[in-house]
Amino acid sequence: MKTLWTCAAASLCIAALAGCATGALQVSEVGSFHVGGRAVTLSGLPEKELSFTPGAPPLKLDPNGDFEVEALYARYTRLASPKAKYPLLMWHGGGLSGVTFETKPDGAPGWEDYFLRAGYDVYVSDAVERGRASWARYPEIFKSEPFFRPKKEGWELFRIGDTGSYATDPVQRKTFPGTQFPVAAFDQFAKQAIPRWGTNDAATQAAYDAYVQKVCPCVILVHSQGGNFAFNSALKYPDKVKALVAVETSGSPNPDTTDFARIKGVPMLWVWGDNLDKFPFWGRITAQQERFRTNLVRAGGTGDRLLLPEVAIHGNTHMLMMDRNSDQIGGLIDQWLTRQGIKK
Amino acid sequence: MKTLWTCAAASLCIAALAGCATGALQVSEVGSFHVGGRAVTLSGLPEKELSFTPGAPPLKLDPNGDFEVEALYARYTRLASPKAKYPLLMWHGGGLSGVTFETKPDGAPGWEDYFLRAGYDVYVSDAVERGRASWARYPEIFKSEPFFRPKKEGWELFRIGDTGSYATDPVQRKTFPGTQFPVAAFDQFAKQAIPRWGTNDAATQAAYDAYVQKVCPCVILVHSQGGNFAFNSALKYPDKVKALVAVETSGSPNPDTTDFARIKGVPMLWVWGDNLDKFPFWGRITAQQERFRTNLVRAGGTGDRLLLPEVAIHGNTHMLMMDRNSDQIGGLIDQWLTRQGIKK
Repeated sequence: MKTLWTCAAASLCIAALAGCATGALQVSEVGSFHVGGRAVTLSGLPEKELSFTPGAPPLKLDPNGDFEVEALYARYTRLASPKAKYPLLMWHGGGLSGVTFETKPDGAPGWEDYFLRAGYDVYVSDAVERGRASWARYPEIFKSEPFFRPKKEGWELFRIGDTGSYATDPVQRKTFPGTQFPVAAFDQFAKQAIPRWGTNDAATQAAYDAYVQKVCPCVILVHSQGGNFAFNSALKYPDKVKALVAVETSGSPNPDTTDFARIKGVPMLWVWGDNLDKFPFWGRITAQQERFRTNLVRAGGTGDRLLLPEVAIHGNTHMLMMDRNSDQIGGLIDQWLTRQGIKK
Repeated sequence: MKTLWTCAAASLCIAALAGCATGALQVSEVGSFHVGGRAVTLSGLPEKELSFTPGAPPLKLDPNGDFEVEALYARYTRLASPKAKYPLLMWHGGGLSGVTFETKPDGAPGWEDYFLRAGYDVYVSDAVERGRASWARYPEIFKSEPFFRPKKEGWELFRIGDTGSYATDPVQRKTFPGTQFPVAAFDQFAKQAIPRWGTNDAATQAAYDAYVQKVCPCVILVHSQGGNFAFNSALKYPDKVKALVAVETSGSPNPDTTDFARIKGVPMLWVWGDNLDKFPFWGRITAQQERFRTNLVRAGGTGDRLLLPEVAIHGNTHMLMMDRNSDQIGGLIDQWLTRQGIKK
């Protein structure tokens, strides 16, 4: 007993006695699942000859049969003693997967880590067609062919630099002054890119809705192209979505016809980075999102806006969860969620 | 202090004082990264017209530009106090991703969870072309078109039932007697399927080699089609691979020309399920793998074999990490690794 009593005075020592490391996350469960989707049968397609090695004789394969398609994949980390009442679901944007929220391209911890340490159970998903959700044969199942985002589009659309500032050679690339993006890791970020289809919105919405029904009540933190899906899910299941954080969301249902009375109990926060005024594209996006937000407020809901330059935080890009100051922004989101009563 | 002293006698209570839950995993870090791959520039391709909504006017998109391709994705969970000296890397098989090792299709914990609780830091990867590793345009970058595994092929090739036992209607499907696969979750398992190419072996090997260089010394646990990549990585980096667990591996370098002297210091264990003798395909695979194993032993290496029916464990399929008795098999692997000196 001597060790025990001597030890008991120091909390570090108590932790050691309990086999419990200081600073470690107390995780009750890690896991994953697919949710949603449908069974499909392909028939009548001709056998395909496929070469397994260029130059080798081709092998005949029958592409017909039964398949499961259009599911969503989610990975979760549940805490032994979460401080939040509800899990936090992170929904990625277009041409990307849940990796958006994991370790940042420069190797620093991302928002998954940040919000776990802030006491949230965190779920990170890959929507239909992307990452571990997988994709299906086209044009028989998916109705179009996919497209792949070139680095130039990522560099400029995500506002790391101005239009025309991208170059193949990393040293020739020009950033906006004071950008927060870890620019040396941009090519590493480009490894996260996922092909995208333009014709899977209905299937994606269906899978997100199934996901919300399975996992929620919850908080949804959604990025970019994911926004429209999250707003629609909130409209369908307003009792299940306890708060919605819209990070540079690029679309929503029509603000002029949306039934805001249905979602006035779902507090929402829009988070925007810097340099939006440099691009007509972003001007149109923010104007549309602002109309959605102000109409929500007009209907009696909570629709707050965190425009980072307005609080003297400069240089943030569209990928602000990967920016060097992502913890600072995560902290502001955590504070807002706390004010909405999400924490215990 | 009263609470502290009263409490100190019970370890549960000590854990509570330290903010540390009994039975929780003490996790020091969760994270992920992409490794390997290369930069590619596409030029001279015509603009593509793509419809975002069937029937809507098409949008013109330029497919040319710079891309990052052929990286591997890995996700890790590191323990505060691992009991193993080296992390355990789990490499999946063909047409699948790292999801193989996560929660099982019936919702029960899989091998990632099992080996974390057994004290290993666990890394789960998606090889080139699959899951979060993403895939690249073909035929310009990948040299062939992909193929999709129908459910029938999975049911029979993975030895859940005999040839001809699959049916579209789940109630009509016939299993081998006493199968350990959670049959009611087979369609859920089919959601994990990933399209595969026959022409990416060199890129996949390069990415695995980069992964081993980044993360190891390590233990590799590899399934099915992944085997050939793991044996090749061990041959290249024998000092970095401290043990190799070959779970129903389907291939390897030529056993008659392999330089086994290089890898005789890498202890290897082959794990096999049941009903292998029902399929000529599996007969050929096991014969080839046995030749690799016995030649390793002949060269003075450790090449052990765990044929489950030989130890009175019956009904296991090719997906034995998803079978109902996966913990029992995980336990035998953990014991073997312990005998190889992998635990502290």
